Amino acid sequence: MIKTIAFDADDTLWHNECLYAETKRKLANLLSAYRAPEYTIQLLDRTEIHNLQYYGYGIKSFALSMIETAIEVTDGTIQGHELEAIIDYTKDTLSADVQLIPGAEQTVSELSGEYKLIMITKGDLFEQDRKVKLSGLADYFEHIEIVSDKSSAGYLGLLEKHRIKPREFLMVGNSLRSDILPVVAIGAQAVYIPYPDTWEHENTIEESFDETSFYRIGTIDQLPDLIRHLEKS
Amino acid sequence: MIKTIAFDADDTLWHNECLYAETKRKLANLLSAYRAPEYTIQLLDRTEIHNLQYYGYGIKSFALSMIETAIEVTDGTIQGHELEAIIDYTKDTLSADVQLIPGAEQTVSELSGEYKLIMITKGDLFEQDRKVKLSGLADYFEHIEIVSDKSSAGYLGLLEKHRIKPREFLMVGNSLRSDILPVVAIGAQAVYIPYPDTWEHENTIEESFDETSFYRIGTIDQLPDLIRHLEKS
Repeated sequence: MIKTIAFDADDTLWHNECLYAETKRKLANLLSAYRAPEYTIQLLDRTEIHNLQYYGYGIKSFALSMIETAIEVTDGTIQGHELEAIIDYTKDTLSADVQLIPGAEQTVSELSGEYKLIMITKGDLFEQDRKVKLSGLADYFEHIEIVSDKSSAGYLGLLEKHRIKPREFLMVGNSLRSDILPVVAIGAQAVYIPYPDTWEHENTIEESFDETSFYRIGTIDQLPDLIRHLEKS
Repeated sequence: MIKTIAFDADDTLWHNECLYAETKRKLANLLSAYRAPEYTIQLLDRTEIHNLQYYGYGIKSFALSMIETAIEVTDGTIQGHELEAIIDYTKDTLSADVQLIPGAEQTVSELSGEYKLIMITKGDLFEQDRKVKLSGLADYFEHIEIVSDKSSAGYLGLLEKHRIKPREFLMVGNSLRSDILPVVAIGAQAVYIPYPDTWEHENTIEESFDETSFYRIGTIDQLPDLIRHLEKS
C-alpha cells in the first residue's frame, strides 16, 4: 500500500534539459570558427562530467564547464566578447521561465487528495528554490527536498527523517541513475517516465539492472491510473 | 528559557571568508599588469553584489563574478592562461580543507548535552554539504539546514517546521544581516560573534537597528557562560 509519492522535478514536472541543450548549441555556434560544433559539444559533455566532483550539478557549474571548454576549443585565444556571450547565456538560462510538463499540474493535483506528496530534486539550491516558486506547484507538496545528489543512502535518510516506510513509498522520475535504481535498491517502488532529452549521464548505467523491478509509463498523466492499478493488485 | 540553539556555519564554526579574501588577492595580482589591485578588488565586490540576484551565494557564483571582472579589467583582452588560473583558483577553493574556528567543537559538544542544536547555513548546497561532512561536527546537530538566503520569513518557516517557539530559540552567528537582525525581528534571541574578515555585504545594514536587542561576545568559547547567565536571569 502506497502512502507517499515523491516526484523528481527537472524533466519530470517541468522542462529543464532543453535549456541546457539550447545553451550547448549556442556555445557550439559561437565557437564554430575554431572547431566543428560536434567537437565542442562532446568536449563540453566530458568537461561537465569530469567537473561534477568539484562543482556538483546546476547551471553555474555548467557555465564554468562551458568556459573551460571554450578555452580549450580556442586554444587559449578566446576573445572577451565570446566570454561575455557565455556569461549572457548563463544569466538567460538562470532567468528562464519555468515550463511545466503537460499534465504535471493536473496529476499532482489529483494525487495530492489521496497521498502525501514530496518533491525530491537534485541540483543547485538557489536555482531549484527559484524554479519551485515559479512552478506554482509548491502547495501540492508536503515537503520539498533539494539535495545535492541522489543515492540509496540519501533516500534512506529522507525516508527516516519523514518516518516513511520504504514499502509505502513510490518515486517518480526521468532518471534511471537518480530516481529509479537507488529507490528500487532500498525496497521501495519507482515509476520511470523517460524524457526525450534526458542528459546521457543520467541514464548511462554501468551495471546491468532488472528492467522489471520498476514501472515505466510514457507520460505523467498515466500515473494516477497506474497507481490505482497497483493498489488493486 | 532556551531550548534550541542554532549556529551559523561559515565564519562561525569554521573559517570561510579568508578563502575568498585570499582568492581575491590572487585575482588582483594576476591582473596587476592591467589595473591596480585595489581597483580589481573593488570592481569584483560590486560585480558579486550585482550578480547575487542571478547566482546566489557560493564559490561558483564568485568564480563567475571573477571572470566577468577580469573581462572588464583587461578590457576584453584577457588571455587563456589567465582564465585557466581563475578556474584553478576556483577548484582550489572548492577543495580546500575545512578549518574549524578555535573553540567551536568544544562549545557545540558542551551545549549539545543540554540543548537541541541546529546548524543553519546559507550558501551553495553542494559546497556546504561537503564542508559539513569534512567539519566532523554533523553529529552534534539534530538538524542541518542549508538555505539559499536567511530572512525573517525563512527563520519563521524553519521554526514552524521543527515546532520551535521563537522565544525558546537562540541563533549564533557572525552576520548582522543574516544571523542576527532577522532573528531578533521574529522575537527570538541572537548572539553576535564578529569575525574579523566578514564580507562587508553581511554587515552593511541600511536601516538603523537597536544594538541592545542582541548579545555580543568576542569568541565562541564564551557562549556557554553567556547562555548560563541568560538562563539564570
